[in-house]
Amino acid sequence: MVRKDLCGLEDLSRAEIELILATAESFKEVTTRQIKKVPALRGKTVVNLFYEPSTRTRVSFEVAAKRLSADVINISTETSSVKKGETLIDTGRNIQALNADIIVIRHNCSGAALILARHVDVSVINAGDGWHEHPTQALLDMFTLKEKLGKIEGLNVSIVGDIAHSRVARSNIYGLTKLGARVTVCAPKMLIPPGIEQMGVRITHDLDKALKNADAVNVLRMQFERDEGDVFPKQVEYFRNFGITRERLAQAKKQILVMHPGPLNRGIEISSEVADGPRSVILEQVTNGIAVRMAVLFLVTGAAK
Amino acid sequence: MVRKDLCGLEDLSRAEIELILATAESFKEVTTRQIKKVPALRGKTVVNLFYEPSTRTRVSFEVAAKRLSADVINISTETSSVKKGETLIDTGRNIQALNADIIVIRHNCSGAALILARHVDVSVINAGDGWHEHPTQALLDMFTLKEKLGKIEGLNVSIVGDIAHSRVARSNIYGLTKLGARVTVCAPKMLIPPGIEQMGVRITHDLDKALKNADAVNVLRMQFERDEGDVFPKQVEYFRNFGITRERLAQAKKQILVMHPGPLNRGIEISSEVADGPRSVILEQVTNGIAVRMAVLFLVTGAAK
Amino acid sequence: MVRKDLCGLEDLSRAEIELILATAESFKEVTTRQIKKVPALRGKTVVNLFYEPSTRTRVSFEVAAKRLSADVINISTETSSVKKGETLIDTGRNIQALNADIIVIRHNCSGAALILARHVDVSVINAGDGWHEHPTQALLDMFTLKEKLGKIEGLNVSIVGDIAHSRVARSNIYGLTKLGARVTVCAPKMLIPPGIEQMGVRITHDLDKALKNADAVNVLRMQFERDEGDVFPKQVEYFRNFGITRERLAQAKKQILVMHPGPLNRGIEISSEVADGPRSVILEQVTNGIAVRMAVLFLVTGAAK
Repeated sequence: MVRKDLCGLEDLSRAEIELILATAESFKEVTTRQIKKVPALRGKTVVNLFYEPSTRTRVSFEVAAKRLSADVINISTETSSVKKGETLIDTGRNIQALNADIIVIRHNCSGAALILARHVDVSVINAGDGWHEHPTQALLDMFTLKEKLGKIEGLNVSIVGDIAHSRVARSNIYGLTKLGARVTVCAPKMLIPPGIEQMGVRITHDLDKALKNADAVNVLRMQFERDEGDVFPKQVEYFRNFGITRERLAQAKKQILVMHPGPLNRGIEISSEVADGPRSVILEQVTNGIAVRMAVLFLVTGAAK
Repeated sequence: MVRKDLCGLEDLSRAEIELILATAESFKEVTTRQIKKVPALRGKTVVNLFYEPSTRTRVSFEVAAKRLSADVINISTETSSVKKGETLIDTGRNIQALNADIIVIRHNCSGAALILARHVDVSVINAGDGWHEHPTQALLDMFTLKEKLGKIEGLNVSIVGDIAHSRVARSNIYGLTKLGARVTVCAPKMLIPPGIEQMGVRITHDLDKALKNADAVNVLRMQFERDEGDVFPKQVEYFRNFGITRERLAQAKKQILVMHPGPLNRGIEISSEVADGPRSVILEQVTNGIAVRMAVLFLVTGAAK
Repeated sequence: MVRKDLCGLEDLSRAEIELILATAESFKEVTTRQIKKVPALRGKTVVNLFYEPSTRTRVSFEVAAKRLSADVINISTETSSVKKGETLIDTGRNIQALNADIIVIRHNCSGAALILARHVDVSVINAGDGWHEHPTQALLDMFTLKEKLGKIEGLNVSIVGDIAHSRVARSNIYGLTKLGARVTVCAPKMLIPPGIEQMGVRITHDLDKALKNADAVNVLRMQFERDEGDVFPKQVEYFRNFGITRERLAQAKKQILVMHPGPLNRGIEISSEVADGPRSVILEQVTNGIAVRMAVLFLVTGAAK
């Protein structure tokens, strides 16, 4: 990997994605040791720059960086200079001037990570930018698929939920298609973005079709809290048509993997029975997130040298 | 100690409490060294999961964990997935999936720590749950009593203030009675919970009686900011009847210890003269809190192995 | 340096300021190493106690402390016991009771750092108190001047902006005059505090006069967000009369340094062209801030022994 940044999977080659996954595999072993630390990034400074509230992703990056012995600085907009009107680029340049090594950025605007990366010399890792990309989430999803099923090439992966507003879906589509998986997206019509078939995916509005022959189903969180009007279907109706339940899965492959980026809306996009059931790898995804983020932090630092 | 969790002192045996206090004694020495760190928890991850704002307790646990060389992750509800409706158990399981070792939880619901402990394999330490328990506060109170008076067995300890809504009072009552102290609770009638005499305490509404023969008085914070109506007495009236002043203490034992869990309401439950006076051990309680929390973090980690 | 605290530059002798700057010089080298850490403060605890929101200064102190291998605890008022009405002195004494070594305090009241320093034995560093002082900002400004121009003695330094409400201006005036620089303050009349000439500065309301012969211009942030009425000039009018632009600088010395404590209000007190131009040392100030704060943290710890 010769890139200083990870802004999205759209930019990465298949070989780069495979390098990240292979590196993550060796870091996963570290997290099972009695002393879960390696000195790989000792003396390096990682800044978590979060313009959107996020505990899961921030904590995952913070744990990953600390296991690599890096120093971690958390900045959230609630208490930041952003309130005083500083631009993103000025904030980034200031962080660079502190001799920080990596900025992990979460931002509500699509493209924010890329803009930042172009204006600073330190490494930038996109931890989610608007509806655009969330590359480390997709990488941990792929890591989990590969760990459980032995490969990604040739798999049938269905992504169910609000595809239109999902950076998780977009990053997964880029990554999975590059590694040779067949991707199906499944959602009510209003939640499928126009032109998505150009990303190389199959579209269906029928959950049974999406589940049939799928090796894995990635269930997106329905963010009803973001709904500002009549765009979203009613929760009950959504659950009836697109909720992942034991009954629905009965018609799928017996070994289908059920994935979810969290946090769960139990009873909305997934039933508790399935979320906690034998096909669910949801918590293993969380565990793998640490290894994948350790790998990304490690690789971008090496590339930035 | 063979327990992975510390949810309350109700569950602990006298021997377990004594083990914690003895372990804390050896850790107290560490905090007086030039380099105040030991590598006991190096490579371990402690997550402070705070659903209620609390600087004192969070900082005390954070300092204790760092002196043991653990990595510390702070999560507060203001910026957490809790906002997105994730359940406590899901949050706990996610933290466990990060390969964290200990969750320190503060929650506004009684029983939250216990519920969490039952659903995760990592250690859970209760840092205060509703009106239920705050075991490390009581342990540091007992540590201070033992350090100052040489023993706990046979001591007369009076707890003055809002007994009804105090997790500090409840944990102290469990701990002190197990170690053979005689406990008196003193408050206006409306702030004494019905049936508390079954916990083995004497009840009085007369401060002079509570102070007479007491070896120590533990003054609770009056949380007038939590009052939502007519339950609480007026502040001036409370101070006149239950405030700890030099005049009141003149009738007590000369060597009586004055304790307070903080933060102080000067002039409400305690006069400044007493809080800063020679009988006050309030700041020593804070210092001892580090040693006690180091002991608890250390012991639960050993038990969880 | 024999002081345990750094509350302001008013108190320091020229020799003490020069010691800090010399110490910072040796720490600056550390921040350019592959592993940017030294064990100077290992086992020490630094508490950032921030009563005002501030990312820049908090992060700078946090990075500096971590590069010295100290443990860092962040406390901000939003989540602190301050909400529960604890006094500043009680908060300070509690932090001291945790066996912390240094309190870095930012407070909206002038004199807060000094009051705290008088009531605790641990070291106190003022990170900005009301309109009073912000000594580490002035020290990093002086460090930058000395690094770029070889000396401070005899330099002409102009400070432009809201002098009346600026702790940065006050600390710079104290420090620069002690080291033998000639200081000019430049602002609209209403933003010049009465009696400031007694601090040994020249006053002008004409930006061209302030820039003429200046070796450096320190441009203050116009905090329009703090304006509560008619005190401040309109932004457009301010920019026309006091904004630092390429045209204005054309009449100044060719090698004039342009400084700014950040965050920038582009187009209000400074044009983007100048802020990003060849005369700007704004980001170098940020870099130097780490070295200066490492020096201060290191020196006060030594003095407190």
